[in-house]
Amino acid sequence: MGHCFDHTDTDSYFGQKTWEKAESQLQKLALELLLQKAALQPRSIDLVCSGDLLNQCISSSFSLRNTGLPALGLYGACSTMAESLLVSSMAVGGGFAQRAVAMTSSHFASSERQYRFPLGYGGQRTPTAQWTVTGSGAALVTANGSGPKIEAATVGIVVDKGIKDANNMGAAMAPAAFETIRTHFDDLGRSPEDYDLIVTGDLGSLGKELAETMFQDAGIHMGNRYQDCGCMIFDPTTQDVHAGGSGCGCSAVVLCGYLLDQIATGKLKRLLFCGTGALLSPVSSQQGESVPGVCHAVAITGGN
Amino acid sequence: MGHCFDHTDTDSYFGQKTWEKAESQLQKLALELLLQKAALQPRSIDLVCSGDLLNQCISSSFSLRNTGLPALGLYGACSTMAESLLVSSMAVGGGFAQRAVAMTSSHFASSERQYRFPLGYGGQRTPTAQWTVTGSGAALVTANGSGPKIEAATVGIVVDKGIKDANNMGAAMAPAAFETIRTHFDDLGRSPEDYDLIVTGDLGSLGKELAETMFQDAGIHMGNRYQDCGCMIFDPTTQDVHAGGSGCGCSAVVLCGYLLDQIATGKLKRLLFCGTGALLSPVSSQQGESVPGVCHAVAITGGN
Repeated sequence: MGHCFDHTDTDSYFGQKTWEKAESQLQKLALELLLQKAALQPRSIDLVCSGDLLNQCISSSFSLRNTGLPALGLYGACSTMAESLLVSSMAVGGGFAQRAVAMTSSHFASSERQYRFPLGYGGQRTPTAQWTVTGSGAALVTANGSGPKIEAATVGIVVDKGIKDANNMGAAMAPAAFETIRTHFDDLGRSPEDYDLIVTGDLGSLGKELAETMFQDAGIHMGNRYQDCGCMIFDPTTQDVHAGGSGCGCSAVVLCGYLLDQIATGKLKRLLFCGTGALLSPVSSQQGESVPGVCHAVAITGGN
Repeated sequence: MGHCFDHTDTDSYFGQKTWEKAESQLQKLALELLLQKAALQPRSIDLVCSGDLLNQCISSSFSLRNTGLPALGLYGACSTMAESLLVSSMAVGGGFAQRAVAMTSSHFASSERQYRFPLGYGGQRTPTAQWTVTGSGAALVTANGSGPKIEAATVGIVVDKGIKDANNMGAAMAPAAFETIRTHFDDLGRSPEDYDLIVTGDLGSLGKELAETMFQDAGIHMGNRYQDCGCMIFDPTTQDVHAGGSGCGCSAVVLCGYLLDQIATGKLKRLLFCGTGALLSPVSSQQGESVPGVCHAVAITGGN
């Protein structure tokens, strides 16, 4: 999928001194590129909706400081790309903003040391573990435009089925994905056939299998319409990431780099983009808590 | 202000085993009380917008798990009560939800050990330090109602003037409060006289003084209209909290417990409620970063 991205870099620090600053730099770059590609001045943006995985969402806050851009901070764990699109589209659709930016990021190294172990420790990963994507995506949501169009969205509920293994987030998030997608179909009177592609954010290979079983058991026939960004982003024949990709950046780069282009070029007519998030923290796990999941769905069609 | 609250407790654990679980329990209680007072079933709520200070906002996520309530997670540090009102009012005003709940919390003990020192260490506090309020507030935002009305809101920008002292958050947030309030007046063609009260969230005594100087220097005459929830919540003659109260819960309980009643009873006709947040994390401070601030303003008037 590398050829789909506007910018790639081999320096995981992106010229910064720490991985956390690198992640913030990633969002800065994404926002700069968005403004360039849309030929817009920063002052023409009414609102930025963004969030990330780092404690207190510092990647987002620091990327926006002193830019003068009105900013709403979000926390939806790895569902943030969908949540930021959803909130941006409410702001624009409701007439409260003309142009909003939905943005997020994640960084493998900043996530590993915050959620799991210091990287230098070289800990062995479990087979169910996923690899946090180092990446950032930003999308411009406007009242008038010719690009892909957000036509509907479903806000997810927080589902916790008691999974306590923080290295098996696909299993923790799959029930939330199932609930949101089922609710989306019910609310809108739709079925899988109404979409060319239904894509979850980062369930990975294990979570995707679980979700498929849940759809099957509920009589929802996804056919070959269902995919997962965590299974799409890496090439398992050359990249050993165990159960797949994860992180806010995973679904963000797959959507902004690949899927939106597929819609813009007519290869996809209607997409259901379902960001998935595991709402745990190291503290909640240390205190014996299970892992709640959430999923927000955004339906995107071809433009005018 | 104690008599204004629906529920007070002398057990800082609220029956839970840890302070983090206690904080989550606080939000659960606030939501239950809201539903009771409004005589609503959970299923009649279309959306909950909530966030908190804990890493990965676990207080909010865990309070909502398995409730079946559609949930958008927010991160605005101590500005969350204003941010959640703002996003709720966009959702309701734009026709995307009929009934939304804006909710947040903070807990002195969970904040101290996350941001500063273990409480058992008994560290001495600097004179500029503020005391995180243990409290939670929840407000129902509906399309039709007779209560106080959200008539306008201004999303803040992230302002960083280079303050590096994480024990002086009032100074870090004051410039953001100034910017948002000035912008609010400019955008709406209003002046302080249009409000009975303009209240910031948790600048504390020091931050409030700084903000007052900035207004004065800019020729914005606040007169005696300006107050700060961090200066209102505690009684300095009997409660030694140094520079005042802070935390998401500070402005949340002052608004939901006191100010909304003042509006409902006609004692206040128009309020500008300005949630203020310091967007730092322990990691950003350890990496030598200064403290960015943000402020979101919500204008609230008497009902119909």
